[in-house]
Amino acid sequence: MMSTRYIYSFSEGNGSMKSLLGGKGANLAEMTNLGLPVPPGFTITTKGCLDYFKLGRKIPEQILNELPDYIRKLEENTNKGFGDINNPLLVSVRSGAAISMPGMMDTILNLGLNDKVVKGLAKVTNNERFAYDCYRRFIQMYGEVVLGVPAYLFSRHLDKVKDEVGVKNDPDLTVDVLKRLISDFKEIVWKETNTEFPEDPEEQLIGAIEAVFKSWQNRRAVIYREANGIPHDLGTAVNVQAMVFGNTGNESGTGVLFTRNPSTGENVLYGEFLKNAQGEDVVSGARTPMDIAHMKLEFPEIYEQLLEITDILEKHYCDMQDIEFTIENGRLYLLQTRTGKRTARAAIKIAVDMVKEGLITKEEALMRVEPKHLEQILHRQIDTSYSAEIIAKGLPASPGAASGIVVFDADEAEKMAEQHKVILVSLETTPEDIHGVIASEGVLTTRGGMTSHAAVVARGMGKPCVCGCESIKIDFEAEVFTVGKYTVKKGDLITINGGNGDVILGEAKMIEPELSEEAKQLLAWADEIRSLKVRANADNGVDAFKARSYGAEGIGLCRTEHMFMAPERVPVVQELILSETEEEQKAALDKLLPMQINDFIEIFEAMEGLPVTIRLLDPPLHEFLPGLVDLVEEVAHLEHADNPVELRNKRELLRKVKNMSESNPMLGFRGCRLGIIIPAIYEMQMKAIFTAVARLAREGKKILPEVMIPLIAKSTELKYLKERLTNIADEVLAEAGVDVEYKIGTMIELPRAALTADEIAEEAEFFSFGTNDLTQTTFGFSRDDAEGKFLHSYLELGILSENPFMSIDQNGVGKLIQMAINAGHKVRPDLKVGICGEHGGDPKSIEFFHRIGLNYVSCSPYRVPIARLAAAQAALKETK
Amino acid sequence: MMSTRYIYSFSEGNGSMKSLLGGKGANLAEMTNLGLPVPPGFTITTKGCLDYFKLGRKIPEQILNELPDYIRKLEENTNKGFGDINNPLLVSVRSGAAISMPGMMDTILNLGLNDKVVKGLAKVTNNERFAYDCYRRFIQMYGEVVLGVPAYLFSRHLDKVKDEVGVKNDPDLTVDVLKRLISDFKEIVWKETNTEFPEDPEEQLIGAIEAVFKSWQNRRAVIYREANGIPHDLGTAVNVQAMVFGNTGNESGTGVLFTRNPSTGENVLYGEFLKNAQGEDVVSGARTPMDIAHMKLEFPEIYEQLLEITDILEKHYCDMQDIEFTIENGRLYLLQTRTGKRTARAAIKIAVDMVKEGLITKEEALMRVEPKHLEQILHRQIDTSYSAEIIAKGLPASPGAASGIVVFDADEAEKMAEQHKVILVSLETTPEDIHGVIASEGVLTTRGGMTSHAAVVARGMGKPCVCGCESIKIDFEAEVFTVGKYTVKKGDLITINGGNGDVILGEAKMIEPELSEEAKQLLAWADEIRSLKVRANADNGVDAFKARSYGAEGIGLCRTEHMFMAPERVPVVQELILSETEEEQKAALDKLLPMQINDFIEIFEAMEGLPVTIRLLDPPLHEFLPGLVDLVEEVAHLEHADNPVELRNKRELLRKVKNMSESNPMLGFRGCRLGIIIPAIYEMQMKAIFTAVARLAREGKKILPEVMIPLIAKSTELKYLKERLTNIADEVLAEAGVDVEYKIGTMIELPRAALTADEIAEEAEFFSFGTNDLTQTTFGFSRDDAEGKFLHSYLELGILSENPFMSIDQNGVGKLIQMAINAGHKVRPDLKVGICGEHGGDPKSIEFFHRIGLNYVSCSPYRVPIARLAAAQAALKETK
Repeated sequence: MMSTRYIYSFSEGNGSMKSLLGGKGANLAEMTNLGLPVPPGFTITTKGCLDYFKLGRKIPEQILNELPDYIRKLEENTNKGFGDINNPLLVSVRSGAAISMPGMMDTILNLGLNDKVVKGLAKVTNNERFAYDCYRRFIQMYGEVVLGVPAYLFSRHLDKVKDEVGVKNDPDLTVDVLKRLISDFKEIVWKETNTEFPEDPEEQLIGAIEAVFKSWQNRRAVIYREANGIPHDLGTAVNVQAMVFGNTGNESGTGVLFTRNPSTGENVLYGEFLKNAQGEDVVSGARTPMDIAHMKLEFPEIYEQLLEITDILEKHYCDMQDIEFTIENGRLYLLQTRTGKRTARAAIKIAVDMVKEGLITKEEALMRVEPKHLEQILHRQIDTSYSAEIIAKGLPASPGAASGIVVFDADEAEKMAEQHKVILVSLETTPEDIHGVIASEGVLTTRGGMTSHAAVVARGMGKPCVCGCESIKIDFEAEVFTVGKYTVKKGDLITINGGNGDVILGEAKMIEPELSEEAKQLLAWADEIRSLKVRANADNGVDAFKARSYGAEGIGLCRTEHMFMAPERVPVVQELILSETEEEQKAALDKLLPMQINDFIEIFEAMEGLPVTIRLLDPPLHEFLPGLVDLVEEVAHLEHADNPVELRNKRELLRKVKNMSESNPMLGFRGCRLGIIIPAIYEMQMKAIFTAVARLAREGKKILPEVMIPLIAKSTELKYLKERLTNIADEVLAEAGVDVEYKIGTMIELPRAALTADEIAEEAEFFSFGTNDLTQTTFGFSRDDAEGKFLHSYLELGILSENPFMSIDQNGVGKLIQMAINAGHKVRPDLKVGICGEHGGDPKSIEFFHRIGLNYVSCSPYRVPIARLAAAQAALKETK
Repeated sequence: MMSTRYIYSFSEGNGSMKSLLGGKGANLAEMTNLGLPVPPGFTITTKGCLDYFKLGRKIPEQILNELPDYIRKLEENTNKGFGDINNPLLVSVRSGAAISMPGMMDTILNLGLNDKVVKGLAKVTNNERFAYDCYRRFIQMYGEVVLGVPAYLFSRHLDKVKDEVGVKNDPDLTVDVLKRLISDFKEIVWKETNTEFPEDPEEQLIGAIEAVFKSWQNRRAVIYREANGIPHDLGTAVNVQAMVFGNTGNESGTGVLFTRNPSTGENVLYGEFLKNAQGEDVVSGARTPMDIAHMKLEFPEIYEQLLEITDILEKHYCDMQDIEFTIENGRLYLLQTRTGKRTARAAIKIAVDMVKEGLITKEEALMRVEPKHLEQILHRQIDTSYSAEIIAKGLPASPGAASGIVVFDADEAEKMAEQHKVILVSLETTPEDIHGVIASEGVLTTRGGMTSHAAVVARGMGKPCVCGCESIKIDFEAEVFTVGKYTVKKGDLITINGGNGDVILGEAKMIEPELSEEAKQLLAWADEIRSLKVRANADNGVDAFKARSYGAEGIGLCRTEHMFMAPERVPVVQELILSETEEEQKAALDKLLPMQINDFIEIFEAMEGLPVTIRLLDPPLHEFLPGLVDLVEEVAHLEHADNPVELRNKRELLRKVKNMSESNPMLGFRGCRLGIIIPAIYEMQMKAIFTAVARLAREGKKILPEVMIPLIAKSTELKYLKERLTNIADEVLAEAGVDVEYKIGTMIELPRAALTADEIAEEAEFFSFGTNDLTQTTFGFSRDDAEGKFLHSYLELGILSENPFMSIDQNGVGKLIQMAINAGHKVRPDLKVGICGEHGGDPKSIEFFHRIGLNYVSCSPYRVPIARLAAAQAALKETK
């Protein structure tokens, strides 16, 4: 009835047994089988761990029964004895789950020592200090990890004794002091646990195994798994391995190496080595390790051996490896190999190089690069190899980094920008500040979330932005801001990192973005594989041009409201909104029309031959007016001043703003509702679009316009508008004597639209899922409010596993999208379906969108390469 | 190949052929077959009308071919000749659709007259004036309706001639003047249409038939159909009937009668009669008609005949009839019968009486009363038989009517209410005004929509409320309001009609509400039939008691936030919200706990033995604080005053309010989000609920508590809260030593909850659909904003056929509800599902809810009888 096998010697396992032996165990087995010099050992399976919990935290009998056999084998392999005082075998006991969780679970080294064995070790190694230091470390580690003694009790006592004997660093402790510490530590164990420190090595081993099992469920491991989406039912394996020592003298040492440069991808050994040292010493930083290349001189044979081994391992694993090794008395041992972490730049170079070297296929290369890491190579980056003074942290609202002098006012930013690079620092920005944003390198606000005006505008422009940095207090009168102990004046240099929200004093060192040759190669391969098209969200010619250079296959979302926000236009837009007669309205629209025509000409030219989806005006009109609260305050103050004309004007403005203000503008008078109730605005936009189309068409250019009507809840809305708008388009085209095909479609961004997509598809020639709004209405989360008030806590409490505004909620919002696609295709089989929310640039979401059959995603220009790669990966995952 | 029959003599049709012959035609046929005295005639079918449009507005040949035969038959039946100058047959040509559209389409009377025939008519009737007046009317009517001459050309000329000859009323026109008018009218026709007025009766008839066909598509008919949900593809029939004349002398006359009193339902003839008159004369009001009872004296034989005929018709149609008749020279003719319109009171009495009389079954009786008309008998009504001075019109926010003296301040309202009936008049109300609302008879606000605070609170209390009455300008300082020419001071009497939004000067005459014996009987029958349970929304013991008296079978929604709004509690709630330490928070909660316990005791006692669903706190906390805009204004003014303490306090309050303010509070920090992030509030509420439950249980009372958690978007939210809250409930019950079963369930009010109802049903023991919020998020309509800004236009433009906040949107929101019920039942077959939005009191929605298998609806106490009847009707419709 013993169907379960719990223990495998390294020589019995292999690299494919990761789920049973854990990553570390499987790789140790694999290396052992490759004939590489691995200290012998065995692995207790993850099944053992799971059964340990199933039995109510009891190690399965079978493991305890079989353990002695494996120890015996280990003794045979090493010619040492476990507990043998003449030639002692010491072991390490390490955790190792199927998915790496670095540092999350427990490790015990030097196990097998006791008061007698330590003497044998001293004799065998001819190094008493080494032996007692091992013993001291073992008691400390075992005491903490297995016996549960609070760590500080040991460390505090160690510090006290060091003080007493006048020693600063551990290595300077003498044998006598170490012996005293060993006895003191045991005393601490006794006091804390009421039991003697176990002398029996086998008892020590069982304790250590149980501790590693237990550590699978410790708090930090559980949280790590939650955070990284690792299932809780995998369990950890336990690796018991003969210790080797790099600290036995100058013929010994320890090191870490990468088979290629993990920062640049260059194909050279990369790593560090420390003579006469254990792993801990490398980590502690007390001594400076030597570059791995230096080993060529000091350990020429071992260096050669390492070159051979790394070649074997790379060819075997077909990937860059991260290797730990120890040299014990001139003999090389490998303690671990695993796939090495790397920067985006390195990942791309390594993948492309390995295709050229014949190690992997193009498809494998594509799977080797994490799409979202491409962001690193597309925005200016802060060079983290230089230290920086981080004075505050806000929300990472728009990626990239920028340095400039602090300015607190949009007008001033515009002026100063003629001479300097400028960072606009403000409570928040409004459409009236747009010229200031345009003039600045980046924006820092103390209020507002990831969809605040500043954030949206900055992302649209590809400018870095840090939002909601609440610890910063601005004194506009004094033209300074303070944060903690720092006071920053107007004109002082700061740097913002929109990728992580850092605000840095002074000018941080930057790395410029570039698409390397390898990146271009990789993306070209991606284009061969993917079926999902990638378009960009762009609102002007410059962005459209940039998007095209990054490989965009059209524009999926051109937001016309951004065109209304240019500084010279805001007054005209306000005239339009505040107009009380048809004449006033017409006058304002007549001023806007030629501007809009030019906007569209620029965009269409940049995207000649590719489809351009233009969304008619969407936001509530009051967004273009001064804020209600500010105006109320202003009027209240004016009531105490002597300026009756100004008071009357502002009161009149306040009356109108009050009239237009809404309790929930997200769900208010915007989108197609505007288009229906105030038809003149959409009519002007249609006239502008098709005048631009007609002009270019007459120049022989191929223009593919798609007009998108936002916020449809019911097919009747679309039908109503479509009739009127196509009339205008057709008139303009006929007048110009050109014949251009165009499409009229809609955003699906309200649950009702998704639920009645069949009815809507009767009218719409394409659907574009506005997943930002759709997520807001489906969850009932106002993004601005949620991010400040509860979303963060929900993620922390595990109520949400992901921010649904970053990665599409497949179960809820995704279900609606699927329903809508199915219903739409039933009515109109050739219906084009795409998405233009922020999810269009999120790799995980892209995989989902590919799977459910969207035709394209649309994202910000900077995310186009990410989307191209993610779409290719989605296609590859599917064919698997 | 002549499979289509287009024309039926009255004797060839019957009452079941309404879709082909129209309502009027089918009833004329039915009466003819019953042997009743109906002037002969024939009906051209609705199919004829539809084919007319199909042929591009051309009368089908077949109709033209067959028409002469039917005219011949008519001549035979009447012994008169069409165009016969000695014994002329005149006909009426009337529209008649399957569904009555009174006044929407066209009618032509006296057709068949021309310059020669009119002389014959004069001779035959021995009444020259009568004949020429018929002819004058005919030309005028035909000119307008068939020939399209603008009506004002005739009426203006008529007025001019009357002036010239010094005549005020049409009946005083002499034969000579009439002859002149006839000639002038023909002249007008000639000038306008460039054709002669047709002399040929057959040509006249064909023109009239075409005009009636056309009128199916006239603008007002199309709009009427849109507004009343009548399909556009029914078409109208055309009834051609021999004219009879009630204006040939004192042995003639015309009248209208109801077979029972349509106002009270009493079983007596009810109607009016005018001697020597045509229908038009009754309508014009120039002469006062006599009561129908008076005919007994003047026309005893005909009165007897009418009694016989009405008895036959009632027994035949099994319903109260509305009959038009004419007496021509002592002979009775019936021109029309149809089901008579009636008040709710009459409808109920007639239905119940008819069951007793054996005319109809209980089931039929239940179908005879329009559920929403029950509202009439449950709120105080303005007696419309008295005239009233309506000075303004607002939104009908809470039904019923109330009179009282005007007061502009909540505190004052409370004080004044000790002596007077009071109407609170305000810009809008806030939670702090609640005591004023409680003290008042009704509320009138100048801002805010149907879900404004005032509206919600008033509806909850069953108090009349008129909201958003923007034409009223309040001057708080002067304590007056002005509207148009009226100025109303504090203390002046006004009346508001929450049923239609009227504001009336002075005290209008009222009718008190009552449930008559017949109504109780009818509702008892409804209870026998229906399967859908009816609960009430009630937030206090008084409402719960009232609801039970109206037949509520439990409480479906007890909104605990209303308990926080009582005037003595608001300061404590504000303390709670503004608390900055746990101690402050606890102190506030400790004050609220005993109040909440009492709240629940009162409600549970009123509903002993019936389930009570209590929703934990739902609204965003800032709703309990002063408004941001008001506070900003106050602080701005304080900055110019010399009161540093007050300024500091208000600034501090402003800081907190700003901190809590949200862009879209509907989608913000409320509902279960509050419960999760600030656990102490829900914990206090659970303690209060179960302390109340325990106390009553120990008195031996049967309490069925159901705790409802609002605004769940993801099952994890519910799981998280349920664990914590059931612990509290169980502890409280265990401490009290009682064992009471309770349920924990959730609102389904967000699309995501509906989409993932299977996951949520794992945790929830019941679902209650919050259709108000679900409609808001599914449509992306903020109700407050939509009603003011675009909903009204959407209804007018036909983009929405119904207000989705009044009647459930079956296609969109309804689809979500169905999906959720199915998914929920799959996981938990005994899941209880109900609804507690305002749709719970809407009959059309109730029918839908019955059909998709909800267990109960919950509505305001006053709507419970409506819901009981609607639920019964839904069950009856289904078995059909």
